[in-house]
Amino acid sequence: MVPASTLAAGSVGSVETRYLDLPTPVRLDCGRELHPVRVAYETYGTLAPKRDNVILVCHALSGDAHAAGLSTVQPAASTRDGFAAEDRDGAVGGALGWWDGMIGPGKAFDTDRFFVVATNLLGGCRGTTGPSSTDPATDRPYGSDFPVLTVADMVRTERAFLAALGIERLAAVAGGSLGGMQALEWAILYPDQVDAIVVIASTHALHPQGMAWNAIAREAIMRDPAWQGGHYYGTGRTPDAGMGVARMVGHVTYLSAPALHDKFGRRLQFADDIRYTITEPEFEVENYLRHQADSFVKRFDANTYLTMSRALTYFDLARQYGGGSLRRALDGVSARTLLITFSSDWLYVPSASEEIDDALRALGKPTELHLIDAPYGHDCFLLEEQRQTPIVRRFLAE
Amino acid sequence: MVPASTLAAGSVGSVETRYLDLPTPVRLDCGRELHPVRVAYETYGTLAPKRDNVILVCHALSGDAHAAGLSTVQPAASTRDGFAAEDRDGAVGGALGWWDGMIGPGKAFDTDRFFVVATNLLGGCRGTTGPSSTDPATDRPYGSDFPVLTVADMVRTERAFLAALGIERLAAVAGGSLGGMQALEWAILYPDQVDAIVVIASTHALHPQGMAWNAIAREAIMRDPAWQGGHYYGTGRTPDAGMGVARMVGHVTYLSAPALHDKFGRRLQFADDIRYTITEPEFEVENYLRHQADSFVKRFDANTYLTMSRALTYFDLARQYGGGSLRRALDGVSARTLLITFSSDWLYVPSASEEIDDALRALGKPTELHLIDAPYGHDCFLLEEQRQTPIVRRFLAE
Repeated sequence: MVPASTLAAGSVGSVETRYLDLPTPVRLDCGRELHPVRVAYETYGTLAPKRDNVILVCHALSGDAHAAGLSTVQPAASTRDGFAAEDRDGAVGGALGWWDGMIGPGKAFDTDRFFVVATNLLGGCRGTTGPSSTDPATDRPYGSDFPVLTVADMVRTERAFLAALGIERLAAVAGGSLGGMQALEWAILYPDQVDAIVVIASTHALHPQGMAWNAIAREAIMRDPAWQGGHYYGTGRTPDAGMGVARMVGHVTYLSAPALHDKFGRRLQFADDIRYTITEPEFEVENYLRHQADSFVKRFDANTYLTMSRALTYFDLARQYGGGSLRRALDGVSARTLLITFSSDWLYVPSASEEIDDALRALGKPTELHLIDAPYGHDCFLLEEQRQTPIVRRFLAE
Repeated sequence: MVPASTLAAGSVGSVETRYLDLPTPVRLDCGRELHPVRVAYETYGTLAPKRDNVILVCHALSGDAHAAGLSTVQPAASTRDGFAAEDRDGAVGGALGWWDGMIGPGKAFDTDRFFVVATNLLGGCRGTTGPSSTDPATDRPYGSDFPVLTVADMVRTERAFLAALGIERLAAVAGGSLGGMQALEWAILYPDQVDAIVVIASTHALHPQGMAWNAIAREAIMRDPAWQGGHYYGTGRTPDAGMGVARMVGHVTYLSAPALHDKFGRRLQFADDIRYTITEPEFEVENYLRHQADSFVKRFDANTYLTMSRALTYFDLARQYGGGSLRRALDGVSARTLLITFSSDWLYVPSASEEIDDALRALGKPTELHLIDAPYGHDCFLLEEQRQTPIVRRFLAE
């Protein structure tokens, strides 16, 4: 146990990731069924007797179930993207949840009032069944035989998990990026079970340039010979080279050009002159990227990366539910919708949230959109917690 | 010979790449000397008796000496970046120069008036000495023992080459992207020998995000085991996987997000439904990127890619010549300067050209800047030839 004095005010304290095996197979969009399915999860706060105070928090591409508090089980479990990740971990000497700034007593997702649940997504590598899990048909890890997933598959799994906990209704579903996609998908798939959704730095469909970045990241992994067609588990070789490149691509897309300029400029890595080397970093920004790559490959599974990247690329509400029309896709939504977007986010662009807001508004649905002017790109959703907190608190108080 | 009837009006006709061996070693910024150095080149138009009508045209990262006309020697020598590359090659059934739309009788660089010279850059892989050339010290290809180059090294080589041709003065130096960097470097290194420079879609120093993209591309190549520390020549293995990823990254940075949206949108590759595959392209944009990668690796050398990418990342006029001040760096320039930049170019951003224009203006130097509003990103410099032509013609007529 960590002494309470080392925890920040408003912390949920020490937490432990738990696991639940779903009682029945999960049906997937690809036509396959998955069984068994284990879900890793954490909860914060207290479930009300009426079970009407539940908020499901959904993670982004590289996240996990450890969303808040200090982990007592996974000391290296931080999965936050962006600048703040290591700073925050270092500050407490342990593994703080990826959305700790937003979840806790008095925080945006107030655990004095709500029972907050976070799971590791289906296809994940942090305790929930994914490509590195054992395939019961072969008794070996699935590898690339793991089914190709959609966001809807992840949401169906979350629902089955909550049902197993005895939870049939959500006060809110909340998330950023891929997490926001899940919130939207929940509101469409299960309109009678979701009171509100909080969709941060997300979209109804990734734009083609974002699809391209994701495709490049996946190509980098799959072209690494160590990927071995996806069956690298147990071979002693993992596609770290390709994963590192994928991470670097992702990382630059999470930031903004001005943020990179402000943080690194064109500063040289060594003293004040160049060394005429191609193989080693000459500039601070090069060294930073390499560091990001090296630390990421130690904690994340390449096949899970492929799975998540593919799912968020497929995600397209208009295609899935509206015959090409976003408005038609959202026609059945009954949840109140809160959209937060960031001016410098060029991966999940503000105009995408505006399109969702416009469509909901045209349908007469309760929706509000907040554009936060901030310079850090997509990473804002993890960095600008102070400015999101009053917006989310007021929205959830209604 | 290609029948004249198959050539577009204004074409320089059939051309042949020639080669010249420099009489003396080239001194490099890294402190090493390079010898022998062979330069591949082409010329278009007629050298005036006074030798005062010479325009040096400088290519970008993946270019070569074949800038105009129809090559009779290298049928697959197209090295244009961007959408138009294959279209143009296909249209004539041969290898049209990478800047054919700008060079020829009556064109921007008018061969009825000027003697236009194009070389393959030092470090190149299209006839000029580069990493794939034989190292006289070992009698094997240099590989990664080839010196690390700067743009200044390339410019010194170009000057030595022109001197060997008996050309001591340039009416203009022109280029886009890395080519524009060379034009700027010429104006600073040899102010008495350059009357004018034409700097298109370029910069005085790449911004940190651009440095990051270049670093990622180089990492993708060097992390490919087939790169073998840079000594892959003659092994039967080349780092095609890493080069492919590098090319995909580069390609997306050459385009704009709206251009990708307009060209591909989120259209699926197969009929009208998804196939649940991660390894194969599902979307047209994914297929397009893979095709770009596959065609690039067939025609370009990975070590040359590393060399060019490193040189353009180092390039920083304020650091090199101004003690941090761009204005001081440009203080000795006497060439008239034409800057052309494109509104949607997010790799070589318009503000960089504005900074050059401002600095020259503050110094009382003759400069003009044209911002062309066009949607295709950095690729505009190769695509928007029609709109550049009158600007360049008028500038050169002065």
